Amino acid sequence: MQELSVRHLLGIKEITPQDIQLIFETADNFKDVLNRPIKKVPSLRDITIANVFFENSTRTRLSFELAEKRLSADVINFSSSGSSVKKGETLLDTVNNILAMKVDMIVMRHSSPGAPHFLSKHIPANIVNAGDGTHEHPTQALLDSFSIRERLGEVAGKKVVIIGDILHSRVALSNIFALQKQGAEVMVCGPMTLLPKYIQQLGVKVETNVRKALEWCDVANVLRIQLERQQMKYFPSLREYTLYYGIDKKLLDSLNKEIVLMHPGPINRGVELSSDAADSHHSIILNQVENGVAIRMAVLFLLAQKG
Amino acid sequence: MQELSVRHLLGIKEITPQDIQLIFETADNFKDVLNRPIKKVPSLRDITIANVFFENSTRTRLSFELAEKRLSADVINFSSSGSSVKKGETLLDTVNNILAMKVDMIVMRHSSPGAPHFLSKHIPANIVNAGDGTHEHPTQALLDSFSIRERLGEVAGKKVVIIGDILHSRVALSNIFALQKQGAEVMVCGPMTLLPKYIQQLGVKVETNVRKALEWCDVANVLRIQLERQQMKYFPSLREYTLYYGIDKKLLDSLNKEIVLMHPGPINRGVELSSDAADSHHSIILNQVENGVAIRMAVLFLLAQKG
Amino acid sequence: MQELSVRHLLGIKEITPQDIQLIFETADNFKDVLNRPIKKVPSLRDITIANVFFENSTRTRLSFELAEKRLSADVINFSSSGSSVKKGETLLDTVNNILAMKVDMIVMRHSSPGAPHFLSKHIPANIVNAGDGTHEHPTQALLDSFSIRERLGEVAGKKVVIIGDILHSRVALSNIFALQKQGAEVMVCGPMTLLPKYIQQLGVKVETNVRKALEWCDVANVLRIQLERQQMKYFPSLREYTLYYGIDKKLLDSLNKEIVLMHPGPINRGVELSSDAADSHHSIILNQVENGVAIRMAVLFLLAQKG
Repeated sequence: MQELSVRHLLGIKEITPQDIQLIFETADNFKDVLNRPIKKVPSLRDITIANVFFENSTRTRLSFELAEKRLSADVINFSSSGSSVKKGETLLDTVNNILAMKVDMIVMRHSSPGAPHFLSKHIPANIVNAGDGTHEHPTQALLDSFSIRERLGEVAGKKVVIIGDILHSRVALSNIFALQKQGAEVMVCGPMTLLPKYIQQLGVKVETNVRKALEWCDVANVLRIQLERQQMKYFPSLREYTLYYGIDKKLLDSLNKEIVLMHPGPINRGVELSSDAADSHHSIILNQVENGVAIRMAVLFLLAQKG
Repeated sequence: MQELSVRHLLGIKEITPQDIQLIFETADNFKDVLNRPIKKVPSLRDITIANVFFENSTRTRLSFELAEKRLSADVINFSSSGSSVKKGETLLDTVNNILAMKVDMIVMRHSSPGAPHFLSKHIPANIVNAGDGTHEHPTQALLDSFSIRERLGEVAGKKVVIIGDILHSRVALSNIFALQKQGAEVMVCGPMTLLPKYIQQLGVKVETNVRKALEWCDVANVLRIQLERQQMKYFPSLREYTLYYGIDKKLLDSLNKEIVLMHPGPINRGVELSSDAADSHHSIILNQVENGVAIRMAVLFLLAQKG
Repeated sequence: MQELSVRHLLGIKEITPQDIQLIFETADNFKDVLNRPIKKVPSLRDITIANVFFENSTRTRLSFELAEKRLSADVINFSSSGSSVKKGETLLDTVNNILAMKVDMIVMRHSSPGAPHFLSKHIPANIVNAGDGTHEHPTQALLDSFSIRERLGEVAGKKVVIIGDILHSRVALSNIFALQKQGAEVMVCGPMTLLPKYIQQLGVKVETNVRKALEWCDVANVLRIQLERQQMKYFPSLREYTLYYGIDKKLLDSLNKEIVLMHPGPINRGVELSSDAADSHHSIILNQVENGVAIRMAVLFLLAQKG
């Protein structure tokens, strides 16, 4: 039986193209399971998984929790609000305490880039990074590519543009790594103030005009504008952003071609995407959510094989 | 096999007297189950239910969660605190995202009247309204009538008075619909400022004197005074309310007859009910709580049959 | 089969030395289970346990929740934030409501000393005290003694010093009772301002010099300094506390003997314990956490036998 090259899913950077393929083939099977009346498999019946969320993320946590329950794992949820973390305990102490309770896998979201990498060097459990600051969000990138592959047959050779606040986005970085490892061409598009300085070194095209970007691409992955960042100086006003980078149905129709429209959610309707665009036949946004559970089942299942 | 006339439980207004009877007969069976040492049945083993609470309600959520677990359903809890809702996502997006994760039923509490009705027109899952603003709270009304039927043999022909803040109460409205559909006589009692203007159109008696109301009735359903509403202008002071509408054991004893005393909880002891009244032999308040689990099991079970 | 002398675990004060031995022998078995690949036993399959936490305690709640799930109990979590408790409901009403939903056991944390004792006189369910104010925290004391027994073979005859803020510590009081019932010698050590006035009546030695305390003992149980109490007048400054009562590796090495170092967690690294002390071979801090799950499984299992 094939297995992953890694014991943890810390980032897309650390895994191979073969790992990605193996995750996708495993997710294909689980997606079949999810479409059956009985959506549960006994694969991880004797495994305990802790969802350790130092940042709120209802959506990602729900998706992981459903994946875990459908694999029949035992699940415990730990969130930082009201926890020892507030009492000044170190990250390592918190996680070591959870592990001492005989937990086998840790799914972790943390605001500090590299937090799961640090932990993986000090604890025996398998770790899945569910987002570490502005760094990586590997399962999101995997479900994005899986959804492209589902719609277009394959990822290799496809032109994918990521549109929005690239600078603060872990989704963007993980997607760039994932798409490149699968042989896609990648472009980023947004105002210069929202593109990181090192962007050229990542081997991606850069475009500031959203129409040109859409004309070029097969797939547009539109990021969420973090409304809470509006006050920050380098950010354009929301009205300016929508005016220059917002995507609506009229713009999509004017392209005279089929493109695939993606968004990691939650959508700010009327900001980065209009409702008629988000709900159009171009959109595979709800497929992404559905595929998220299958991808996370695959990742957890494969990491459990590595022990 | 009999089945409900509806795919959702949005309100008592939308269901038939036959639906109510079917729910009660099904709840009778589940109540037997709950009194056995093994309280679990495998009925909904392959069903995933999301409890989506946009307003806090520990008590109602716990009752639903226990009902779901005793039906062997898979349960996920979504509460708005810390969720995408705070990030400005629309209700429909939030629920569509939950559904895309392959959830079969949604139990929803929302502060806006009609929110579950709106959703039911746009999503394929079965919806149970667990309270929508000041509109309806149908499972509460069902468990209230079920508890009257249990104590008095039947609801038809009984005289039931609902006492308190009728204006802001979803419990009152659902109870009025439920009791009338079963052939009970309904009275509401409270200060004029806390009675809605349309009350006469509902075909209920209106009484502002609590002693007269108690002398008339077989059953008194005493609503909770929302302490947080005290500041509002139209509301009498709490002391005045207790003086004129508070019910104590002395008042009950002075009636020289048996009445059944109900309260949806949580009780403000010393405000709408004195402790000696709440804990008297008249009270079926804890029976209401116990019946809540059986009624919710029945509703979930019957809706699942409708697919 | 042996059984406990009590139906509730309210405090160590209420149980016998024989109860403690029975809990330890039962925990030995469950600890074996936790070290097997399949960590679950069906013992409490038909039991519903409610974790009712009126104070936040992620760590203790997680440990209980894992213990309950590994016994195959059905688990519901109730925390006071956002609950009826905020709406002014009495403790007894809240718990009676939970019980009316057919819950068999209550694990309760409450800020008021004696709250679980009060409840035990009014409700039929088994109660486990998971910490009541500054009074008792019996499962913590049991896991502490169990960890000493594991490391040193037995508790009887051992010299144990408890170091820190004895005045505000439920862990200290429960440990004193537990250690004395098992025939250990107990000393408390801390600044006079943090020792309760009645300490002499408990039959323990008192020492204000931490070096002398460590020279005397076989085991040092170092309590957490509650950083939030710093503002209080009787408390020394944090710097003073660390200077006079903080324990580091250098101090431990200078003793020229083996001692066992314990801490109930979460550690304030650099305050009551330095990192090199906490992570030294003296420390059994993570064993305490691991043993916590086995001890709690034993307590729940034995109380369930009492019905």
